[in-house]
Amino acid sequence: MTKGALDGIKVVDMTHVYNGPFCTMHLADHGADVIKIEPPGRGEQSRYFPPLKNGESGYYAFLNRNKKGMELNLRSEKGKEIFAKLLETADVLVENFRPGTLERLGFGWDVLKEKYPRLVYAQATGFGTYGPLASRPAYDIIAQSMGGIVSITGFPDAPPTKVGPSVADTFTGTYMALGIMMALHSRSKTGKGQRIEVSMQDAIFSTLENAIVTYTIDGKVPERVGNADPAIAPFDMYTCSDGYFFLGVGTDALWSRLCDVMGQPGLAEDPRFASNNDRVNNYIPELKSIMDDWAATKSVKELESLLEEAGIPGAPILNVDDVVNHPHTAAREMIVEVEHPKLGNIKIQGVPIKLHGTPGSVRTAAPLLGEHNEEILKDLGYSDEDMKAFRDDGAF
Amino acid sequence: MTKGALDGIKVVDMTHVYNGPFCTMHLADHGADVIKIEPPGRGEQSRYFPPLKNGESGYYAFLNRNKKGMELNLRSEKGKEIFAKLLETADVLVENFRPGTLERLGFGWDVLKEKYPRLVYAQATGFGTYGPLASRPAYDIIAQSMGGIVSITGFPDAPPTKVGPSVADTFTGTYMALGIMMALHSRSKTGKGQRIEVSMQDAIFSTLENAIVTYTIDGKVPERVGNADPAIAPFDMYTCSDGYFFLGVGTDALWSRLCDVMGQPGLAEDPRFASNNDRVNNYIPELKSIMDDWAATKSVKELESLLEEAGIPGAPILNVDDVVNHPHTAAREMIVEVEHPKLGNIKIQGVPIKLHGTPGSVRTAAPLLGEHNEEILKDLGYSDEDMKAFRDDGAF
Repeated sequence: MTKGALDGIKVVDMTHVYNGPFCTMHLADHGADVIKIEPPGRGEQSRYFPPLKNGESGYYAFLNRNKKGMELNLRSEKGKEIFAKLLETADVLVENFRPGTLERLGFGWDVLKEKYPRLVYAQATGFGTYGPLASRPAYDIIAQSMGGIVSITGFPDAPPTKVGPSVADTFTGTYMALGIMMALHSRSKTGKGQRIEVSMQDAIFSTLENAIVTYTIDGKVPERVGNADPAIAPFDMYTCSDGYFFLGVGTDALWSRLCDVMGQPGLAEDPRFASNNDRVNNYIPELKSIMDDWAATKSVKELESLLEEAGIPGAPILNVDDVVNHPHTAAREMIVEVEHPKLGNIKIQGVPIKLHGTPGSVRTAAPLLGEHNEEILKDLGYSDEDMKAFRDDGAF
Repeated sequence: MTKGALDGIKVVDMTHVYNGPFCTMHLADHGADVIKIEPPGRGEQSRYFPPLKNGESGYYAFLNRNKKGMELNLRSEKGKEIFAKLLETADVLVENFRPGTLERLGFGWDVLKEKYPRLVYAQATGFGTYGPLASRPAYDIIAQSMGGIVSITGFPDAPPTKVGPSVADTFTGTYMALGIMMALHSRSKTGKGQRIEVSMQDAIFSTLENAIVTYTIDGKVPERVGNADPAIAPFDMYTCSDGYFFLGVGTDALWSRLCDVMGQPGLAEDPRFASNNDRVNNYIPELKSIMDDWAATKSVKELESLLEEAGIPGAPILNVDDVVNHPHTAAREMIVEVEHPKLGNIKIQGVPIKLHGTPGSVRTAAPLLGEHNEEILKDLGYSDEDMKAFRDDGAF
């Protein structure tokens, strides 16, 4: 039986923490054989990221499911020999070191493309392998700040605001996976691999939507607008008796329906709010205060059912507890259980890309450090004696 | 010469506004032939989204570069005939209608998979095609709210905060493109297409990083933490004399270097700040106020050069003006110029996935409404008389 759409694709994964492992998670979820290489003895840094239990990291666990784990010291001679052998059998090499690291180890692209002409080599970096900022160190927040998203997230009267989760990493990892699949497609025509790169700053910049053309065509520098939509009303977050609720009314028909739901059908006739333009122009203070007063009399649950019945787009602000336990999340298999030898039976996020013909899945837990050392070396044809020699050399 | 890695792949694109067009933008940037189908006479709704100039939308323009445009009325008999003929020549069909729409037009998956067994059919939805919320209407903000990201973005003492740009749409579109490439890879082995789907809520949920395991393993519901990192210090945004600046010190070595840069080498010896744990525990109010006092004496430019020289990760908060005009953005070709027949020479975002062997590019502007009607129909083998009959029938 197939493990998924990418069954048979072999990926050598030299990535750490978030963007690279997120890239190879997508590939492994859909059946690629991902061999994760880590520094011997200690593993990559996210093995120490909380939540921790029985000495194992839940952070590492969700991100590295479905992968095989191998220790390898690329500074040792035998380590280099094993790595070269691995690459002979690989379709893809992924890394997210600082630019230049693999060159210094003797595995720069000039070498790789000669020795392994079919190899797809993917690099994730903070600022790319070229350009004046290429050598700058980056964390997710640095790419968010310099990519522009922080300047347009948050409220107008509050400071620039970072996006909670590390979206520079997740976009970069997903773009890398997409670039890898494009390069594999191209290879199926030409027989040749290639080098691809994605930078965290480029990735964030590419998601700024109309903010770019608003500036380059209209000359306006976009500012923070909080939760309200500056061009549609009412389209905002409101405070109910027991929490927050989002409500979006994009058409006159929806507005009229909302006035009924609010028990104020007269509002639909009010010339201050006749068209979307009128509603936007009279949103603050008039319309907003009417909406605020009404929302304050309802609970989140009440608002949710009222709007659902009326077919008006609305949403409670689900926290992690709410969304993890929502029946829809279960129905979508977006939370899955996997048995981990030390963490026990854990719940982690499922597979978001649903291929109905060849479904992806969470088949195995993340590897313990070096769990598949021997299996992988045997697959490469090495003997027990070879392994002893490798150990003596400090290769793993 | 090849147009890119996906040269020769034909995509029939029935998507509107953001997630679907963002998906097919990635495919078209890398050389796929994307035929965008729009309602005759008016086109899709983003043709009316600001910024507008000479009756054309800058929003539509950046998102639909490299695509061909065709009007088609799928409610007319001839329109259905043309659509069926198009699908015979297509590798991929992408749509983001409400679930069930194509079924009602006679092109549900049951029909498609029989008639076009090699077709990859991709659907983007708000909540998916199954599960208790499947029929709910969604905007980006609704998927953000119900996917969990809004609950963990923003400051602890402020309301939940939406991410500025529409990340539910961009993640969904990118996941769709990745799913399509995986399905094409699978087809190259099996000869069979398949149906794939991505929901905006699933997509957001999949990016919540360690927030999920923090809850499922540690039992803690993650809360908003603003711009500071709760586990590292100093790792926060500070207020300079003329703006904001982000600074991240992840190791003791960096901390010691920072103390030198601050001209307060004694701080590195201060037992309150000896280890990262100490710095986190004594961050508020002690360390934060030291950092605030120091940052206030510097301009953003001064801080940027001081930290760059010392190799300490730091970042100004670039706004859209700053980042569009930054020399690094030019060097990375992340802003490109394209000549549009009505908008003139416009600057839009470039291609973030850099394939060095088969580079993607912005080759053509977004199509005017119906610009390629005749070209596409001729490619399908239709005559001028056929076209007249189609027009009379209201097919376009």
